Amino acid sequence: MINYEAFFSRAAGHMKASAIRKMGGVAAQGRDIVSFAPGFPAPDTFPWQDFQEIAHELLSGRDGSVLQYGPTRGYRPLVETIADVMARRDAPTSPDRLLVTTGSQQGLDLVARVLLDPHDVILVELPTYTGAISAFRSVQADLVGVRQDADGVDLDELDEVYDRLQREGRRARLLYLVPNFQNPTGLLISRTKRTALLDWAERRDVLLVEDDPYRDLYFEDSASEADVRPIRADDRSGRVVYLSSFSKTLAPGYRVAWIDAPPPIAAKLEIAKQASDLCTGELDQRIVYEACRRGILDRQAPLLRAYYRHKRDVMVAALAREFGGDVTWPEPRGGFFLWASIPSPVDTGAMVARAIEHGVVYVAGQAIPIGWPPASPGRLPPDA
Amino acid sequence: MINYEAFFSRAAGHMKASAIRKMGGVAAQGRDIVSFAPGFPAPDTFPWQDFQEIAHELLSGRDGSVLQYGPTRGYRPLVETIADVMARRDAPTSPDRLLVTTGSQQGLDLVARVLLDPHDVILVELPTYTGAISAFRSVQADLVGVRQDADGVDLDELDEVYDRLQREGRRARLLYLVPNFQNPTGLLISRTKRTALLDWAERRDVLLVEDDPYRDLYFEDSASEADVRPIRADDRSGRVVYLSSFSKTLAPGYRVAWIDAPPPIAAKLEIAKQASDLCTGELDQRIVYEACRRGILDRQAPLLRAYYRHKRDVMVAALAREFGGDVTWPEPRGGFFLWASIPSPVDTGAMVARAIEHGVVYVAGQAIPIGWPPASPGRLPPDA
Repeated sequence: MINYEAFFSRAAGHMKASAIRKMGGVAAQGRDIVSFAPGFPAPDTFPWQDFQEIAHELLSGRDGSVLQYGPTRGYRPLVETIADVMARRDAPTSPDRLLVTTGSQQGLDLVARVLLDPHDVILVELPTYTGAISAFRSVQADLVGVRQDADGVDLDELDEVYDRLQREGRRARLLYLVPNFQNPTGLLISRTKRTALLDWAERRDVLLVEDDPYRDLYFEDSASEADVRPIRADDRSGRVVYLSSFSKTLAPGYRVAWIDAPPPIAAKLEIAKQASDLCTGELDQRIVYEACRRGILDRQAPLLRAYYRHKRDVMVAALAREFGGDVTWPEPRGGFFLWASIPSPVDTGAMVARAIEHGVVYVAGQAIPIGWPPASPGRLPPDA
Repeated sequence: MINYEAFFSRAAGHMKASAIRKMGGVAAQGRDIVSFAPGFPAPDTFPWQDFQEIAHELLSGRDGSVLQYGPTRGYRPLVETIADVMARRDAPTSPDRLLVTTGSQQGLDLVARVLLDPHDVILVELPTYTGAISAFRSVQADLVGVRQDADGVDLDELDEVYDRLQREGRRARLLYLVPNFQNPTGLLISRTKRTALLDWAERRDVLLVEDDPYRDLYFEDSASEADVRPIRADDRSGRVVYLSSFSKTLAPGYRVAWIDAPPPIAAKLEIAKQASDLCTGELDQRIVYEACRRGILDRQAPLLRAYYRHKRDVMVAALAREFGGDVTWPEPRGGFFLWASIPSPVDTGAMVARAIEHGVVYVAGQAIPIGWPPASPGRLPPDA
């Protein structure tokens, strides 16, 4: 009998499965269950017929490269289309800054590998996205959480945490943010705070990792294009590494996302990607490119805004009706997530199993390894 | 001006682009060039019409999960199909040993992350596959090469290298092999040597990483199913981590491959994959699954064997005609690769640029960072 423990890397020793992915697995087992766990877009919004037509044309065999290996940076016409998308977000860019990734999760993973060594510190929002936690932990980085106000990270606490780290002889080099409708809180960082965060990063010589998959899904009753303006749009010195995706606007089954980064970082990310998976699936990239070129993405965005806004309304009405005034939440102004605070002595973790029996699943805050309970500011143990 | 060097991880500091991928880039730029550089399958062999029909059915919208996030282990019916494929390779397995990966490159990357720490030693064939070199280097492992005979790794030298490492206080825990029609040499490890390698791994308590993308492409004039029998098929103690792929038999544009590993290793690989890209593209997996279920893979295999055998014949005839007796090569018995040895003073590296001018590109041995020139046995500097 082989003792495999003796063969595992230190990184493998720290690996833990994400609770949200496990919950996703429950939903994926085909049980008739209402899942509020993972950020799955609604398949009935996908433009099936357009995809069917596009795939039919692409798979005619006229262009053999549709099913071939492609360049690591991405299918060039798609890269150029992404540059157009960035320009419309007031963040003009160029192909030497862009890299197509196999979903944004790969983007986070590549950022972690290129910018973090074991025991380096990365600052994150409290709570933060579990996929990012997995990526940063897989390189054995130490995540340090900073409490969020309703409009985003608390700046005083950010300073405090940074200073305390420095006194301990450690420097935070990265700050990870999901400014628009964050997973899991649904929070939107205010415009003034975005400016303040960029200033702070300049002052402290920290790079910002801006993860922005939900920006197109603002709800028009309470948010606008101006509210979701990327921090990257005001970055004059090359301090922001920006990630975004087609998963929430076209479909996640394609695994097509991108990173925009200063060219020296983009060049390293490209090499890291080459070692990770050579290239993103070519058919997926072609379909996404065609969906952009034919105006399908533009047509989808307003439909999705209305669709998910309606879902938010239904959820908020149900919560108010069922829980009354005991349960509170910041009203989502876009995206997929609503973070409800339920007063003690209710144990939301213990309740998950009972919820599943009743055909419902959600993520308990305690399942998110950083940020629950909302601890006193500062560093959490790496195996929290 | 930001000094990005100060932000890069140690791993990023060591990252270098693969020469073969660069050569692939030359070919991908759409120039009318004959490329002998990367292991690109021929698109005219792809079953386009079948893929077109399959994609049309899958994208009807009847099953929303076709474009959704999927389980990290892979689409369950595909996992079961892979188990059937493994059984037909005399290597019966079970879903708890299997993981679908985003191409075999991801498989190598995950293996590296789960089984190698910085400065750990992995033994490799001399020369070995550049994609594996990238993956192992990206975790800062030290690659130590072992010379190959015509029938595979030289066993005496393997022992010698292992012993010398041990005297230096270092233990090799992994041996990476491409037994069938290796990239880049085209070599096939003999049946007796396969047995000997497994015995050796048992004796030395080393895990074997068996990378097997080309096994279906044996040429029937000189090889058979028996010759390509996986080492994994005779593994009684759980010592082999086996990788294979649909990229060379269906199409690489789908990025669908798999790992078969002892369950404790498979469980860690799954978590590493979750952090890497959450899941392999669902549409890609469904198409591959349908191509298996409908017998397309089985129909393709003999066609591909005949097709690539013909290409081998054309190449061998051209080499003999153009170079006469000065240039030698082991005659490929399958797969995509032929390794020609060209006598000095010809500098094959310097010749690449001129070849490209003439519309041809190939990989010079010196571009493969391990194994050229065929050095005296033993450790190569980590930045060779």
